[in-house]
Amino acid sequence: MEGVRVAGVGLTHFGQTPDRTGRELFAEAAEAALADAGVDREAVAELHYGNFMGALGERQGHQAPLMAEAAGLSCPATRYELACASAGAAVRGAVRAIAAGQADVVVAGGMERMTNRAIEETTEALAIAADELFEVRAGVTFPGAYALMARSYFEEFGGEREDLAHVAVKNHENAVPNEYAQYRKAITVEQALSAPIIAEPLGLYDSCPVTDGASALVVVSEAYAEANELDASVAIVGSGQGGDALALQSRGDPARTPATDAAAMEAFADAGVGRGDVAAVEVHDCFTIAEVCALEGLGFYDYGEAVGAARRGETTADGDLPVNLSGGLKAKGHPVGATGGSQVVEMTRLLRGDHPNADAVDGTVGLTHNAGGTVASAVVHLLEVVE
Amino acid sequence: MEGVRVAGVGLTHFGQTPDRTGRELFAEAAEAALADAGVDREAVAELHYGNFMGALGERQGHQAPLMAEAAGLSCPATRYELACASAGAAVRGAVRAIAAGQADVVVAGGMERMTNRAIEETTEALAIAADELFEVRAGVTFPGAYALMARSYFEEFGGEREDLAHVAVKNHENAVPNEYAQYRKAITVEQALSAPIIAEPLGLYDSCPVTDGASALVVVSEAYAEANELDASVAIVGSGQGGDALALQSRGDPARTPATDAAAMEAFADAGVGRGDVAAVEVHDCFTIAEVCALEGLGFYDYGEAVGAARRGETTADGDLPVNLSGGLKAKGHPVGATGGSQVVEMTRLLRGDHPNADAVDGTVGLTHNAGGTVASAVVHLLEVVE
Repeated sequence: MEGVRVAGVGLTHFGQTPDRTGRELFAEAAEAALADAGVDREAVAELHYGNFMGALGERQGHQAPLMAEAAGLSCPATRYELACASAGAAVRGAVRAIAAGQADVVVAGGMERMTNRAIEETTEALAIAADELFEVRAGVTFPGAYALMARSYFEEFGGEREDLAHVAVKNHENAVPNEYAQYRKAITVEQALSAPIIAEPLGLYDSCPVTDGASALVVVSEAYAEANELDASVAIVGSGQGGDALALQSRGDPARTPATDAAAMEAFADAGVGRGDVAAVEVHDCFTIAEVCALEGLGFYDYGEAVGAARRGETTADGDLPVNLSGGLKAKGHPVGATGGSQVVEMTRLLRGDHPNADAVDGTVGLTHNAGGTVASAVVHLLEVVE
Repeated sequence: MEGVRVAGVGLTHFGQTPDRTGRELFAEAAEAALADAGVDREAVAELHYGNFMGALGERQGHQAPLMAEAAGLSCPATRYELACASAGAAVRGAVRAIAAGQADVVVAGGMERMTNRAIEETTEALAIAADELFEVRAGVTFPGAYALMARSYFEEFGGEREDLAHVAVKNHENAVPNEYAQYRKAITVEQALSAPIIAEPLGLYDSCPVTDGASALVVVSEAYAEANELDASVAIVGSGQGGDALALQSRGDPARTPATDAAAMEAFADAGVGRGDVAAVEVHDCFTIAEVCALEGLGFYDYGEAVGAARRGETTADGDLPVNLSGGLKAKGHPVGATGGSQVVEMTRLLRGDHPNADAVDGTVGLTHNAGGTVASAVVHLLEVVE
């Protein structure tokens, strides 16, 4: 894919801000992205927006035109919903529109509010990303589903809780300098292992928090960037999406996530780069086991090999393939409808060099991986510094 | 736009089927569309799916991969939500993917269940398409909002309840031969005028019903259609989308719907055809006044002129510009997340000549118009017989 540039990026602080409205959060992220891009609102042709649980959590559907208005945009707006991959889908819609020459300037991103109600209600709202008839009614929640995946993984490939603890320790460490992160607090392996168990074998530190926040990107055509002398040095060079059965029970092997494999295959083919070119990765670590499965599905590790990657220091900031330099969903936070956009924002800043962890990136290509449900949906983007 | 063909179309019967699951409904429509196209499931590269209120009505989010699985498709799937224009947005996503060469065969469509719970709950769920902070909390429901639009229209341009009654009479008449329609029952102007008032000046027959149903299309590239000798004589030649402030109070004039104007302008420019070329139109008549506003926004009538169009016989089946030959949302029914797809299905059959009202179409170009909320979103497609 050619000719697609990230001209500007914006985020709210990720955290617990129950009193801030959704429109307030998204407007802040969009305003930051437009200012970063140096693009006027009038130039924006489309808004591609991700949100997951606004119907349940805010009684607000039809959020796309609402968010356009809040951000001061007078353009058509579309909402994408793909559970926790909603903003990944929105970014993909935006990228495809630019790549196809259907628009020159678009805004993509997402927003989620998760702490404006009782935690039980948020847990119930998250559960609608699973199969209502065959999973939710049987009592499945996402910690339980990912615990099943972890147990299957351990049984098939080996690995232990301490391996996963190193994933959490790494991602917390990465979040410390990130001003947008929910938890800027380093933890130890001992802390992770001694924390309360949520769903065996996953403990508190294996799980991402609930988070309010928004993300936004200004995506432009290369021609527009040049004509308007924008500083848009990062290109989106590949996009891929994969799908799978919604219910975990319908999959062949709960320890594998083929939607990620499919998304990666499409994105790498689209970009014409190889896995060896990738210098940094942001993956969807809603639980520590999810990071392990993602790195294998993406093809950076063979099946069964990624579980020890953080423990061996391969995916830490000083490792060969730094993973989740933002802090990941685990420590940066996971406002579900915003996360896929946030990953591209973080990767853009890492590649541009204006991220506190940018020094860890030794190369010009980065990958983002956003997943929905128990990876019934996956969206992958490849970014590259082009000038 | 060139090279985008409709290869197959499918619908469920529109009506009240509270015991049928969403996956059952969509699978039926998709199966019909694939059979009509003569395309194997394995060839389908993407599913673009519309649904509005599944989170509230079925406690089921993340429906896109679920529907792909139900339809036997092994491909990435994306849900679009734009209130009652959700399937219009899904069709647009599908059309753009084909037009841009990003896929050769995709399925688009949508599904909604609206009668599996108390009508009060459905009314509350529909209301989330309006602004929760500034409309819903003030008691606005959609019959009330469209009544405001009708009153504004009458005040600014003239017109009376009897004009609107003729819209309802026309659309009921058109639905009589349509086997997919919810109400295959002709009504008289007197019946419409003497029916209970829902929100002055709109009565029962000015309002569409609540409906369960699904729609699906197989959209392919021209090259694929030729290589596989598909019977795909209808092309989608134009696509447009418009947006506006979500809340009616934020608009300059409640009697006009500028999102429709913008969507039409983009679609006509994209297609390179003029309004005079259009032989049949399916517009979003959730209320009779909405059909009037749509015909003016689309540019078929000057502002203030469309209110008498049905009464004058210009938009009836034997008029110069037949409108809603399917029966429209009014009589065919309005399963909100399926409607935008259903309109394209109906128009395809009208243009192909295999629709019971096809004889009323004197020409080769048709237009579909799908709207969300009080037209904060509008999606327009232009279809043309090309061989």
